[in-house]
Amino acid sequence: MGRRQSTVVLLTDFGNRDGYAAVMKGVIRSICPGATVIDLSHEIGPQDVGEAAFVLWQSYKYFPSGTVFVVVIDPGVGTARKILCVKSRNYAFLAPDNGVLRFVLADLHSFRAAVVSNSKLFLGKVSATFHGRDIFAPVAAHLARGIGLSKLGPAHRISRIENQFIDPERVGPSEFQGSVVYIDRFGNVITNVRLSQGKKKVEKFTLSINGFEVSRFESSFASGPPDAPVCYRDSSGLLGVAMNRGSAAALLGARVGSTILFKFSQ
Amino acid sequence: MGRRQSTVVLLTDFGNRDGYAAVMKGVIRSICPGATVIDLSHEIGPQDVGEAAFVLWQSYKYFPSGTVFVVVIDPGVGTARKILCVKSRNYAFLAPDNGVLRFVLADLHSFRAAVVSNSKLFLGKVSATFHGRDIFAPVAAHLARGIGLSKLGPAHRISRIENQFIDPERVGPSEFQGSVVYIDRFGNVITNVRLSQGKKKVEKFTLSINGFEVSRFESSFASGPPDAPVCYRDSSGLLGVAMNRGSAAALLGARVGSTILFKFSQ
Amino acid sequence: MGRRQSTVVLLTDFGNRDGYAAVMKGVIRSICPGATVIDLSHEIGPQDVGEAAFVLWQSYKYFPSGTVFVVVIDPGVGTARKILCVKSRNYAFLAPDNGVLRFVLADLHSFRAAVVSNSKLFLGKVSATFHGRDIFAPVAAHLARGIGLSKLGPAHRISRIENQFIDPERVGPSEFQGSVVYIDRFGNVITNVRLSQGKKKVEKFTLSINGFEVSRFESSFASGPPDAPVCYRDSSGLLGVAMNRGSAAALLGARVGSTILFKFSQ
Repeated sequence: MGRRQSTVVLLTDFGNRDGYAAVMKGVIRSICPGATVIDLSHEIGPQDVGEAAFVLWQSYKYFPSGTVFVVVIDPGVGTARKILCVKSRNYAFLAPDNGVLRFVLADLHSFRAAVVSNSKLFLGKVSATFHGRDIFAPVAAHLARGIGLSKLGPAHRISRIENQFIDPERVGPSEFQGSVVYIDRFGNVITNVRLSQGKKKVEKFTLSINGFEVSRFESSFASGPPDAPVCYRDSSGLLGVAMNRGSAAALLGARVGSTILFKFSQ
Repeated sequence: MGRRQSTVVLLTDFGNRDGYAAVMKGVIRSICPGATVIDLSHEIGPQDVGEAAFVLWQSYKYFPSGTVFVVVIDPGVGTARKILCVKSRNYAFLAPDNGVLRFVLADLHSFRAAVVSNSKLFLGKVSATFHGRDIFAPVAAHLARGIGLSKLGPAHRISRIENQFIDPERVGPSEFQGSVVYIDRFGNVITNVRLSQGKKKVEKFTLSINGFEVSRFESSFASGPPDAPVCYRDSSGLLGVAMNRGSAAALLGARVGSTILFKFSQ
Repeated sequence: MGRRQSTVVLLTDFGNRDGYAAVMKGVIRSICPGATVIDLSHEIGPQDVGEAAFVLWQSYKYFPSGTVFVVVIDPGVGTARKILCVKSRNYAFLAPDNGVLRFVLADLHSFRAAVVSNSKLFLGKVSATFHGRDIFAPVAAHLARGIGLSKLGPAHRISRIENQFIDPERVGPSEFQGSVVYIDRFGNVITNVRLSQGKKKVEKFTLSINGFEVSRFESSFASGPPDAPVCYRDSSGLLGVAMNRGSAAALLGARVGSTILFKFSQ
């Protein structure tokens, strides 16, 4: 994690109107001028920890080794909640201890964690309401400069429960009850049903959601009919529902958390 | 197109909430760490090829020589539609073969094109729904590193029809029927009527749109009255309609595609 | 303000859909390839000079020494309004002479200013409607390269009135009438009442706004009850009103400019 080409990725619910995300970049650049900062998203719903957890999981693998991810979806800012730094072989993650890392942690083969408490790394005066600026940004910059995990604070053990992908539940011999985990800008409905790696196609099945049944599978959006929802394999390997040139989410009335029932017929 | 200061410009309809655009940056940075990535826009209307074509045309000339433009407005992702790379003296453009480059192509004096098909340049596993990540981003990074056009795939001939600015039609001796090509954040209504280079002012004319007639020309937004629409020369040389401190588009009920009639009286 | 690590910060009302902000980056990069450009915000309300003035004031101190700030909220573009460059010990600010720098100027210990008029620094052809591209961006790039203030144009004297933070008015022995200066994405209502540096807590007070009275103070958002507004010290040292996991602005019907009455009881 050398100084010259280090990458810092920001994921927050700060939005793009207020200057909060930019201020974090100013702080990072003041401490580590050589870092490149990339915005993963600042449009996560205010305090929507689940949405951020999903977007981070979906994306992190595509960043170069050495990337520092900074996640500031932090309803508990200024309270006793911990700030964690998790380091895997390739990445460092800085986030409040509120479950926002759970999908990523479930993915990682091994990692070490520390509670971020070394206030020498923070800005001089720490406010009670903007730790993104006063704690996360300067610590991220120090990570980008190569500081070791042990310098941040005491080691931390992450429990199994904080470290878990929420998979669908088996409710029958070939029947699974899952849920919608994300809806993107195109109205694609992404579920927590994982399609096995090799399988590019699912043959016979029924997906039930909000009283609708979908049993057609297409490999691409445009190969489906323009007026009906189809299932597809999302680019992260999850089962999704899409509509050619339309919003499946709007048609189905789907929301994050909506229950789905998935039944294989083979 | 050297490695050190190469610029990659992204234009997509991915929005700024989902992490899709950021993932493209992660892939680019993994392959070409020295590239600077600039977001032209990710807020193009979902699958709105025409809007993207206009924004690209309006903007590309202002980027440094050697810039690689990556356009992912791609309703046909995963089908047999081609991905093209067009190279002019100064720039490279990577886009689906769906007309999104037509305004730029009409502008360029000369260019060469290739069908992007060399899968050695793609990510290891190519999904059927996210070619931005799996094909466009890695190929853009290789272009930023200086790869030659012929390494991407076979040469491609672009027909005259794919290479055309849509100009207004002459419908009378000094009468043209055109259309609205863009409406910006301020509600400025931009038409496809091109004002000749030297001409900073149009003397006598009537522009008709949605039952309104506009015959006043102002050089700047603030020089017009606050409650009436005026014509002006847009910063790209097109005829526009604006309103001082208000939205001309809202007043006129104008939309992209709205018909206009432009009548010179001189 | 060396060439290699210079930072240019953009603050505009251009939005993130149109390509206008990106075009400014293209121009800057063409002239000063080594500059890093950071978006402070492009989502300032169209022509909302006051909003931009606040966001700039709240943010500028967190950027590294040598940063060039470019503010294009410019309803008077193309008219006789001046463009100013203000240089303090650490920063340069480029903005129309419309009051958008007033909060920052009130903060700075000393500064010099010039009217930007040296057209040799502008793009070849200057449009009447897009000075962000044709004047602000190239001049910012020259500033990032280290050009001196005197090369931009004649020195300019800024009057006391242009250089003033708008503080609340004393309307009783311990009573102040102020106003809402900003509302952020979370619905936090930020007033122009400045809390003294050392004071982290205000003991006894009543804040009146839109018929509501708030007299509870909390140090962090999450320490308040979930259904009632509380006062807090904003990260810039201003008195704010927030609601735990909700929008105080929505509850109170507060807007920028809303009057508040603040009464100390101690």
